[in-house]
Amino acid sequence: MSFSTDEVNFLVYRYLHETGFYHSAYVFGQESHISQSNINGALVPPKALISIVQKGLLYVEAEIATGEDGNERSIECLSLID
Amino acid sequence: MSFSTDEVNFLVYRYLHETGFYHSAYVFGQESHISQSNINGALVPPKALISIVQKGLLYVEAEIATGEDGNERSIECLSLID
Amino acid sequence: MSFSTDEVNFLVYRYLHETGFYHSAYVFGQESHISQSNINGALVPPKALISIVQKGLLYVEAEIATGEDGNERSIECLSLID
Amino acid sequence: MSFSTDEVNFLVYRYLHETGFYHSAYVFGQESHISQSNINGALVPPKALISIVQKGLLYVEAEIATGEDGNERSIECLSLID
Repeated sequence: MSFSTDEVNFLVYRYLHETGFYHSAYVFGQESHISQSNINGALVPPKALISIVQKGLLYVEAEIATGEDGNERSIECLSLID
Repeated sequence: MSFSTDEVNFLVYRYLHETGFYHSAYVFGQESHISQSNINGALVPPKALISIVQKGLLYVEAEIATGEDGNERSIECLSLID
Repeated sequence: MSFSTDEVNFLVYRYLHETGFYHSAYVFGQESHISQSNINGALVPPKALISIVQKGLLYVEAEIATGEDGNERSIECLSLID
Repeated sequence: MSFSTDEVNFLVYRYLHETGFYHSAYVFGQESHISQSNINGALVPPKALISIVQKGLLYVEAEIATGEDGNERSIECLSLID
């Protein structure tokens, strides 16, 4: 499993567009030279960034729930920014 | 587990800054009214977006490895954009 | 005769809008705090920046034509950038 | 006397830079393809936009002072935005 800077940038670019931050999307597209990346945008599903972030949180949740001793613990109010 | 739009926006804003996309960061900060969010930036660790995306991929990897029948499968070349 | 920075900024902002540079107009509006200026946009005629620049060139033309000795001289190919 | 869109854009671009609106200058540079214009920036004196606007106002002042009947009139509070 690995990913490139270009891939992350593309997900961020799509996120900016999909959420209506059109000026940000334009400027980021220019500043990151998004049009010169080799990514086929047609392969990227809608809301891809949000989807992967959600799964990342599920992973964190699983890590915390298991704990170091392998015992499950309860999770309350786990948030993206902690 | 849940997260708000403000939280995702903050991670994206930080990402733009940390990767040196200063014009994009400025414009996104303005367009998303980042300064009006209630997020305490001091609580957000460096490279938070990259970190959560990596964990999201680990989660996807685990999903694929397990498969529907519960049997493990090999994973080759799983990438962020597939 | 005098003019303020706010006035020049407003003419530039209008120019960006009128010529279809919408991302630039947005960013400049934010960066120059255009909404906090006291200028009544309704008083600013269309293409105001272009109009004043044209008159500035006519003034330069007159200066050159007259010369220091008061005698008229011919003008050829006077351009905005010389 | 004439000037091109590229010339006006270059003066505006320089103005944005000279006045410290760096994000705006970047975005306008991209949006107007300033790097593809044929203008030799070395030939453009500092504060060129401000200078030409000042001369434009002097021209307007002269027009008003002379009036239609050729008689001089007093000018009070002529400003850039009227």
